[in-house]
Amino acid sequence: MQTHSVPAPELRTTAWLNTDAPISLAALRGKIVVLHAFQMLCPGCVSHGIPQAQRIFESFDAAHVTVLGLHTVFEHHAVMNEQALRAFVHEYRLRFPVGIDQPDGHEDIPLTMRAYGMRGTPTLVIIDQQGFVRLHRFGQVSDLEVGALLGALLQQTVAGNARSAAADAGCDGNQCAK
Amino acid sequence: MQTHSVPAPELRTTAWLNTDAPISLAALRGKIVVLHAFQMLCPGCVSHGIPQAQRIFESFDAAHVTVLGLHTVFEHHAVMNEQALRAFVHEYRLRFPVGIDQPDGHEDIPLTMRAYGMRGTPTLVIIDQQGFVRLHRFGQVSDLEVGALLGALLQQTVAGNARSAAADAGCDGNQCAK
Amino acid sequence: MQTHSVPAPELRTTAWLNTDAPISLAALRGKIVVLHAFQMLCPGCVSHGIPQAQRIFESFDAAHVTVLGLHTVFEHHAVMNEQALRAFVHEYRLRFPVGIDQPDGHEDIPLTMRAYGMRGTPTLVIIDQQGFVRLHRFGQVSDLEVGALLGALLQQTVAGNARSAAADAGCDGNQCAK
Amino acid sequence: MQTHSVPAPELRTTAWLNTDAPISLAALRGKIVVLHAFQMLCPGCVSHGIPQAQRIFESFDAAHVTVLGLHTVFEHHAVMNEQALRAFVHEYRLRFPVGIDQPDGHEDIPLTMRAYGMRGTPTLVIIDQQGFVRLHRFGQVSDLEVGALLGALLQQTVAGNARSAAADAGCDGNQCAK
Repeated sequence: MQTHSVPAPELRTTAWLNTDAPISLAALRGKIVVLHAFQMLCPGCVSHGIPQAQRIFESFDAAHVTVLGLHTVFEHHAVMNEQALRAFVHEYRLRFPVGIDQPDGHEDIPLTMRAYGMRGTPTLVIIDQQGFVRLHRFGQVSDLEVGALLGALLQQTVAGNARSAAADAGCDGNQCAK
Repeated sequence: MQTHSVPAPELRTTAWLNTDAPISLAALRGKIVVLHAFQMLCPGCVSHGIPQAQRIFESFDAAHVTVLGLHTVFEHHAVMNEQALRAFVHEYRLRFPVGIDQPDGHEDIPLTMRAYGMRGTPTLVIIDQQGFVRLHRFGQVSDLEVGALLGALLQQTVAGNARSAAADAGCDGNQCAK
Repeated sequence: MQTHSVPAPELRTTAWLNTDAPISLAALRGKIVVLHAFQMLCPGCVSHGIPQAQRIFESFDAAHVTVLGLHTVFEHHAVMNEQALRAFVHEYRLRFPVGIDQPDGHEDIPLTMRAYGMRGTPTLVIIDQQGFVRLHRFGQVSDLEVGALLGALLQQTVAGNARSAAADAGCDGNQCAK
Repeated sequence: MQTHSVPAPELRTTAWLNTDAPISLAALRGKIVVLHAFQMLCPGCVSHGIPQAQRIFESFDAAHVTVLGLHTVFEHHAVMNEQALRAFVHEYRLRFPVGIDQPDGHEDIPLTMRAYGMRGTPTLVIIDQQGFVRLHRFGQVSDLEVGALLGALLQQTVAGNARSAAADAGCDGNQCAK
């Protein structure tokens, strides 16, 4: 597993779909964030990355795991614009929030994509409850690996809850504490 | 997630394939055990359960996660015998150990299957490091859910190691400790 | 099988991709034409229809079977424009010619789509060597059914060749004449 | 396409499942025969060959296309016996007739498999209405190719019917005559 124990750079976006207010990583501290960077015309994103993001969104408790899409356009800028993305999100029935990565005005690579050093799309980034990048992967990642990392990180939440509230052992969404 | 915080009954088997010596859960204490109960002529086992067991076997560090097959024959006993199972395991190139659940001599349901109260095949059972059943599911289970539980349980191993040896934060196989 | 023994209306297009010159059905008389009507943001087209068109394109002799895409935009017109389609065709590496169905200027349904009475996308139309519509189907069609119709129609070509040239029995691309 | 314009050797079998009476190719003259040679413990047969045979069985009119399974055991003879095959056919819910290729008593390769010169399993053989082998393929064959050959052969039936009865043009199951 490729991991980075670095603080996750803040998202820099021009708009958000599927949410009423802009989303910041800072405001999500305490939750795990699954960030799926994609382009709407990227075949690997459409066939693998986006369906996986949707499965994660449906499998984990939103109280602990936030799934975000990030439209990191680095080619065909003219046609992968906000209006096109809105049609795409509508037709593919995506339900999780999707942010539009901010262009820098003179280069192809948008700001968030550059800050994370992403190599392309799809890229999956998983950020822990303290805001550190725990997975950063270009291409396909197996559901087993994603699940294992999320389960490990959720265990921290449960352990934290246990310490702060002397909680009993129990199961929480997709994982269990003994 | 269907969970049972009960001690896992010991395996009762008549033979083991893919291993030099018989395997007992008692001897695996300290490791997570993924037990895949199947029948070689069960279509759902062949198409879904066994490939998932193989993926788990390939994805997790054998030092922490043990994958076991268990041939729980409850029908067509005459043809799903040990010799047939050996041919099946050979042709399907299974690499993890496979035990043969012990018939009780007069009923259809073999002893381990009965002890666990399994409803049929495939059934997936995940047993934690202390020997407790943490998942017991008949039918299909998603890789995300299996991964999440294994990640949570592995975190206990890491946490336990940390407590006993003041270990630094780090990543271990398929999960990370901060 | 839904069949229509009606003459195939001529294609009315504003542009063609993947070909040097505009394509007309009239000029293709004597060949079988497989017409795949799609929209670039239609999930069923991307997951099923377009891959099937690509398989047909790769499986049959272009001397006898012509595969054409037709971009029949009836919604999200502003973002499924020619420039966007060019990016889509490039990213999905489509190799067969793709025409853009002609808007009528005031309604949503473009002219060719209306002339064929298509209900939506994906729609598969198969036109025989004499220019008659032999299959017209909205949604998914199995490869077995598409293959069977193409094999039957190709047999006519072979039979025709046999009559006109007293040709020997033999195999032609994907089918055989005895 | 690999084709053989040779007469199909008669089937030599010891038993038939899913049919009341033994089946011979001679008695099927006038129909197309799709012969799927498999072994119940052959992974490629279970994952690809048998499902394709089932799709063919469900897609074409039994009045014109007969689908037959043939259990050509050339290894693990002791466990792939008739009783085991019956359990397999029951569990996988196969509906088409399945014959058991006749062992020759001292070699591994059974008689029909040897007569056809099959290299292994799965092997697909398609025999035309006059009893000639038109396709003989070891491994996977695409549905498009199978469909195209069946469509071409069915066209002969239709053409024959047309010649003998001055039949009108029309559609017959999975193909159409103009």
